Amino acid sequence: MTQNPIYDVCAVGNAIVDVLAPCEPAFLDAQGLTAGSMQLVDAARSAALYADMAPGVEASGGSAGNTVAGVGSFGGRAAYLGKVADDQLGGVFTHDIRAAGVHFGTPPLKDGAAAGLATGVCMINVTPDGQRTMCTFLGAANQLTVADIDAEVVGASAIVYLEGYLFDPAPARAAFEAAAAAAHAAGRKVAITLSDSFVVHRWRAELLQFIEASADIVLANEAELHALFETEDFDAAAAHLGRIVEIAAVTRGAEGSVVFGGGERVAVAAFPVDKVVDTTGAGDQYAAGFLLGLARGLSLGDAGKLGSLAASEVIAHWGPRPMTSLETLAKDRGLTLA
Amino acid sequence: MTQNPIYDVCAVGNAIVDVLAPCEPAFLDAQGLTAGSMQLVDAARSAALYADMAPGVEASGGSAGNTVAGVGSFGGRAAYLGKVADDQLGGVFTHDIRAAGVHFGTPPLKDGAAAGLATGVCMINVTPDGQRTMCTFLGAANQLTVADIDAEVVGASAIVYLEGYLFDPAPARAAFEAAAAAAHAAGRKVAITLSDSFVVHRWRAELLQFIEASADIVLANEAELHALFETEDFDAAAAHLGRIVEIAAVTRGAEGSVVFGGGERVAVAAFPVDKVVDTTGAGDQYAAGFLLGLARGLSLGDAGKLGSLAASEVIAHWGPRPMTSLETLAKDRGLTLA
Repeated sequence: MTQNPIYDVCAVGNAIVDVLAPCEPAFLDAQGLTAGSMQLVDAARSAALYADMAPGVEASGGSAGNTVAGVGSFGGRAAYLGKVADDQLGGVFTHDIRAAGVHFGTPPLKDGAAAGLATGVCMINVTPDGQRTMCTFLGAANQLTVADIDAEVVGASAIVYLEGYLFDPAPARAAFEAAAAAAHAAGRKVAITLSDSFVVHRWRAELLQFIEASADIVLANEAELHALFETEDFDAAAAHLGRIVEIAAVTRGAEGSVVFGGGERVAVAAFPVDKVVDTTGAGDQYAAGFLLGLARGLSLGDAGKLGSLAASEVIAHWGPRPMTSLETLAKDRGLTLA
Repeated sequence: MTQNPIYDVCAVGNAIVDVLAPCEPAFLDAQGLTAGSMQLVDAARSAALYADMAPGVEASGGSAGNTVAGVGSFGGRAAYLGKVADDQLGGVFTHDIRAAGVHFGTPPLKDGAAAGLATGVCMINVTPDGQRTMCTFLGAANQLTVADIDAEVVGASAIVYLEGYLFDPAPARAAFEAAAAAAHAAGRKVAITLSDSFVVHRWRAELLQFIEASADIVLANEAELHALFETEDFDAAAAHLGRIVEIAAVTRGAEGSVVFGGGERVAVAAFPVDKVVDTTGAGDQYAAGFLLGLARGLSLGDAGKLGSLAASEVIAHWGPRPMTSLETLAKDRGLTLA
């Protein structure tokens, strides 16, 4: 018999500050970037790309960080494990996640700047259709290790949520495994997002192995799902995923999402948006609503609706985290967590 | 006979990075802040306020910096003089203004952090009606001195534009005077914005003396105009201003603006906006369109229209600078710079 959890969701991820700027599609071509992708870059490439980018805005990011900030905005209880450096952008990240009501106690990397390991940044170029293309310099985020996995916090969380992006930095992958083990040892659920189809291509076998061995809940978008099972057949891929995990949610952009669990399959509509400004964080905010809904025992469909609501808020403005209280928005829509 | 200018506008201002976050009116009361005001804060108060603020976004700011970024977005030629520190936020400020096409060559303050002089930040709390309340920690911006006034750049600019905010830091005020002198020595125009009614209250006599002695163009909002002449009578204040400067523009929020010059008085409508998200930068962007229009020899009314257009873009999103090309928007609206 496990104790009642203190946190609804504890996320483990790459702690990143986003730099977001508008661009034309031709800019992506000129930079050799694949529209809609995330790629890792080194410090030199990061600086060169930044120099060419348009004026923009900065906002705390990191996929799983965005998700727990969303959980906090809903009035949920969340925690975060991730590594920033002891610098100005690290201060921004730390402020924003704590101000969202999220417990964040991972010690920052000391003297990161001297080692060329400043707080990680993700340079995000957004085309007029709202699609984002990301280049990430991991910096200090790459230094998250097993020692940073606070088993007490993980064990006190109904769901531990892991970023597929953590498969890229090797020390973080070990942290990822440790977090999953700590969650299961405490009788909690392990959720994972596939993060990005290119990450799935890079680590397909390893991800599949991890999911089969350790994941209870999987979040993915269509492209990631197809990449994981190497098929273009959505129904076949979804059925396969449904056989290896307890619960799954697959997001389909403007088409909404499909959630699976216990033999059930529920289609969830997207909330309408006047104008899609920047899709950065759409999947992360969907995860916030969905996971919080699951942690509170909502039905799959109701959890999916919370996800859709959160995604609709974030794509209507620049940046990957809510700028409006999701708790208030949910109340206005008659959606409750109770 | 002066040479053709290289720049349309050269601005001198406090180089600042904004931290913007949503808040409820009760938050302003709890913090003892006057809605809609700008106040200077020290490092300790700055840190305490930041700790209490909601999660937000960062964006390069500084009133005059915002204006020249707007000029650049219109495809105009602009330059900027202002002081950042040699730190991450200074890098953000420098990137953004240069990426807007603005010449920015003021050397950053070295080792500012050690002296407690990091790049200046302005903490901006925005209520649901879009109104912003600002607390500024000047930091390195306070170290702008006469030595930073590049007389060659000033002399090569059709209009030099000065922030009333520079009346607060004493070394900057001397820089302000030096820039005006350099502009006039080169046969250029000197424009000033009154910046903030509280700044006007603090420095009323000095501002009035400066305007009478050195300003050709004045930008103000209604509250600032009333504060300058200590009257609630708009027409009387406007007439007074019209007698002491060549050209003036007074912004009236949703009511648009009134521009004066050569005995003419033209009312300019505001452009409609679906939803006012954040009014930060509205006056700064109005100034961008208006000053660029003047520099290019447009009529007062047409210059005012460019100002209205730029203001309408910036209040529809978070942050004080354009996130859409003003050049494209102007073309779409049939407004040309000729």
